[in-house]
Amino acid sequence: MPEPASSIAERNGGAAPIPEPPPTERPPAWPHRHLLDTDVLTWPQIELVLDTAAVMAEIVARQRPRSEALRGVGVTNLFYEASTRTRVSFEVAAKHLSADVVNVSVSGSSIEKGESLLDTVRTLESLGARVLVMRHPTSGAPYLAAREFRGAVVNAGDGRHAHPTQALLDLYTLRRHVPGGSLRGRKVVILGDVLHSRVARSNLWTLTAAGADVWVCGPATLLRGFDAWATTGVAGERRFTVTGDIDAALRDADAVMALRLQQERMAAGLLPSLHEYSARYGLTAERLRLASEGCLVMHPGPMNEGVEIAADVAAGPRSVVTQQVANGVAIRMAILSLVTSVSLRGEA
Amino acid sequence: MPEPASSIAERNGGAAPIPEPPPTERPPAWPHRHLLDTDVLTWPQIELVLDTAAVMAEIVARQRPRSEALRGVGVTNLFYEASTRTRVSFEVAAKHLSADVVNVSVSGSSIEKGESLLDTVRTLESLGARVLVMRHPTSGAPYLAAREFRGAVVNAGDGRHAHPTQALLDLYTLRRHVPGGSLRGRKVVILGDVLHSRVARSNLWTLTAAGADVWVCGPATLLRGFDAWATTGVAGERRFTVTGDIDAALRDADAVMALRLQQERMAAGLLPSLHEYSARYGLTAERLRLASEGCLVMHPGPMNEGVEIAADVAAGPRSVVTQQVANGVAIRMAILSLVTSVSLRGEA
Amino acid sequence: MPEPASSIAERNGGAAPIPEPPPTERPPAWPHRHLLDTDVLTWPQIELVLDTAAVMAEIVARQRPRSEALRGVGVTNLFYEASTRTRVSFEVAAKHLSADVVNVSVSGSSIEKGESLLDTVRTLESLGARVLVMRHPTSGAPYLAAREFRGAVVNAGDGRHAHPTQALLDLYTLRRHVPGGSLRGRKVVILGDVLHSRVARSNLWTLTAAGADVWVCGPATLLRGFDAWATTGVAGERRFTVTGDIDAALRDADAVMALRLQQERMAAGLLPSLHEYSARYGLTAERLRLASEGCLVMHPGPMNEGVEIAADVAAGPRSVVTQQVANGVAIRMAILSLVTSVSLRGEA
Repeated sequence: MPEPASSIAERNGGAAPIPEPPPTERPPAWPHRHLLDTDVLTWPQIELVLDTAAVMAEIVARQRPRSEALRGVGVTNLFYEASTRTRVSFEVAAKHLSADVVNVSVSGSSIEKGESLLDTVRTLESLGARVLVMRHPTSGAPYLAAREFRGAVVNAGDGRHAHPTQALLDLYTLRRHVPGGSLRGRKVVILGDVLHSRVARSNLWTLTAAGADVWVCGPATLLRGFDAWATTGVAGERRFTVTGDIDAALRDADAVMALRLQQERMAAGLLPSLHEYSARYGLTAERLRLASEGCLVMHPGPMNEGVEIAADVAAGPRSVVTQQVANGVAIRMAILSLVTSVSLRGEA
Repeated sequence: MPEPASSIAERNGGAAPIPEPPPTERPPAWPHRHLLDTDVLTWPQIELVLDTAAVMAEIVARQRPRSEALRGVGVTNLFYEASTRTRVSFEVAAKHLSADVVNVSVSGSSIEKGESLLDTVRTLESLGARVLVMRHPTSGAPYLAAREFRGAVVNAGDGRHAHPTQALLDLYTLRRHVPGGSLRGRKVVILGDVLHSRVARSNLWTLTAAGADVWVCGPATLLRGFDAWATTGVAGERRFTVTGDIDAALRDADAVMALRLQQERMAAGLLPSLHEYSARYGLTAERLRLASEGCLVMHPGPMNEGVEIAADVAAGPRSVVTQQVANGVAIRMAILSLVTSVSLRGEA
Repeated sequence: MPEPASSIAERNGGAAPIPEPPPTERPPAWPHRHLLDTDVLTWPQIELVLDTAAVMAEIVARQRPRSEALRGVGVTNLFYEASTRTRVSFEVAAKHLSADVVNVSVSGSSIEKGESLLDTVRTLESLGARVLVMRHPTSGAPYLAAREFRGAVVNAGDGRHAHPTQALLDLYTLRRHVPGGSLRGRKVVILGDVLHSRVARSNLWTLTAAGADVWVCGPATLLRGFDAWATTGVAGERRFTVTGDIDAALRDADAVMALRLQQERMAAGLLPSLHEYSARYGLTAERLRLASEGCLVMHPGPMNEGVEIAADVAAGPRSVVTQQVANGVAIRMAILSLVTSVSLRGEA
């Protein structure tokens, strides 16, 4: 049984629950030329993304999905890190909108020759890119790119910092599967290596904005800084709890999001062993019994099955992992469509 | 001059020649949602593939080849092994049919992060793949994928096991170049590293089904198991001879298919040296004189010229190596078209 | 202030300036099935490329650039060396013309299995390539390919030898930015590692053909052979000066083209250190003051900022580096269109 909202609010320093936003009479205009993180999005803007994605999902559901919205618009995927799902998701989204997609990955590119990021960005713009979808191992790199690029930059993951389209697709998925469709007062757990997770960071913003009661849980070494963040009220009036106690976190949870554990964390001395991590923080069927009956299981992928999540949980009846992937295409179509509505405005 | 069919039958343990199938009045329906190997194909189904490919070849021959058959259908090439010809062949075939093609290769993908095969398959399906064209170093991997994937899986080569589209394009090429267009009683030699060849395995099935007198020839270390297969009648009534004697194999042959010799075989101690292999089993112009006058020379590529095949033979007048490549596009268009006729049926 | 043309001619051994070509009444036919280097192009043919590119640039400038000129024509990018800008530039150019583009790079291809270049070329042709855009580390490799390939081969850079589309886009860019639009008598400096630069070699031909007074400048070890070439009149009546004196080279220059310095040169003992190279031959704002007031700054990219060119110069008001990249798309559209007008003629 979920805790009453009041006790949650108290635990978060007495902050009042976020009021449901008033109904908007007509869709708000989208003001953002770039999408670099979720923290600049107001709640009506988040809702605009979700509503646009719902329309896009209808296109995706057709046997032969195709819209002419971005016909002939150059979309370049610039990936400095390996990725299947995110790169393909953006590629498919752009193609569904009839955009012209170019893939540039570090392997096999002049980036290996030491070209500077800004020079690469200027080059891709000169080659016709109007949207630059960018993944980079350095936090903040897309912000640098956005200062130079005259089209739209969409952050597809930068270092430990942000992964805004992942957070938006997670929110979209949650709202479609939570009874009633609202996250207000729902307990959502983010479990695992929060310290290094851009997925967690971007999700914190959108989930708390949606009124969820967000719990962040993992070993102390992987939570450094978050505790202070929560207690010092960095999150403002938002409901945000940090704990190392997985039982407390999972108890009566409405959704739990297991994060990928990077093997590199062991080498860095942050964790004793994969086995111990799995034993203490792995999401197993047994642990999931603590959660509410319909508790949703999520993972941004790719999963280390048997480490942060048990294989039977990942493929179990509560898992919405494949729905997350499918919804990602609709969310990215929405974002591509919204940012170009700003960036192409002057060029028409 | 070819041996009479009766003596061939005797040499194969007295098995009766396969009767020519009765003429079918209307094209048989294609029942296979996946194409994992050739061994499930009946002769009428094989003929249906070849006839469909002949129609596709007319499209390919146009200066600007394009059919709308798979407009908007998602075809994903998932390649866990390096490949030029097979990946490009499927990509071109899919584009000729107006499909939306996504390429995923191991380098630069999250597969490097250790994602399980099934998780990858589920992800690609959620991202919109309706056909999964898959190459994998592990024999049987596409069967595993097919159990999970709700679209169509096409095996583009798995370990030592099968390479069904290669066998079909080989058969198509043979029938177009053998006088009379039938392989009944024709002597076809598969030469080289049969033990490790998925091309050989898939070809054995289709060639014997077509009524050919198939000879498999190579050093004893690269034929292990095939001898028992032939003598114990695993091949049923099909005509199938195994020998280490290259002269006997090539004598009066109507076609010879040289297999690629993997350099790794030397390291594994299966062969003394490339030089010795080449001297004893390389397909040279001199050896080819033993074969029938119009004997066709084939190779699945990529060729090690000077090893399993001499450069002058590979580029000589009897070589149909480039025709094999060109026919591969038509065969793959046919297969993509046939499997989606099953897999998309319920979704229409 | 630029030197008078007569003194330039004297310094070049008294060769007479190249007369301006007579006006052509109608566009000359384009005779070249391949584009392997600039040295086979007559001045009217060069002008035809530039004029065609100007038309293509109008298409590129549209918000949704698209021509149907090469609808359904197979263009294959075969890259044996890493490249972002050139590969993407050809890919974008081909897509703007509605061609079907296939990318093949060394990593992840059967080329790693040791397939011969000619076998690869034959294979790609059989797979439907009608234009083969090729980059290769070996000088002359595209000439070998062109002997075998029955479509059109476009050299996208071979070893130290040639990079014809780069030279053409450089000329196009110069003519658009030099006052009056003509290079006759203009002083153009090529600065840096000329010895290893295919960009320099292809530019020498087109720039001198355009009537420019071309100066080649760098450390003696990176100019070997050019000096003899200039003094023995290999360049014919063209105006061509070789010097190690950067001040003399830059004085009153109308344009300076800095070449990329390959780090490998240090290892080869041709240069003492990056620092020393940069100090003696780097293009800095201070050195640029020697040049004429509107002197254009060019670089084929990717740039080593701080080595062969200072960052403030690369991004400064005289820099046309991004224009070079943008113009490259139009030039490549022109070349693809011209070569296929020859290679597809017989197939119509």
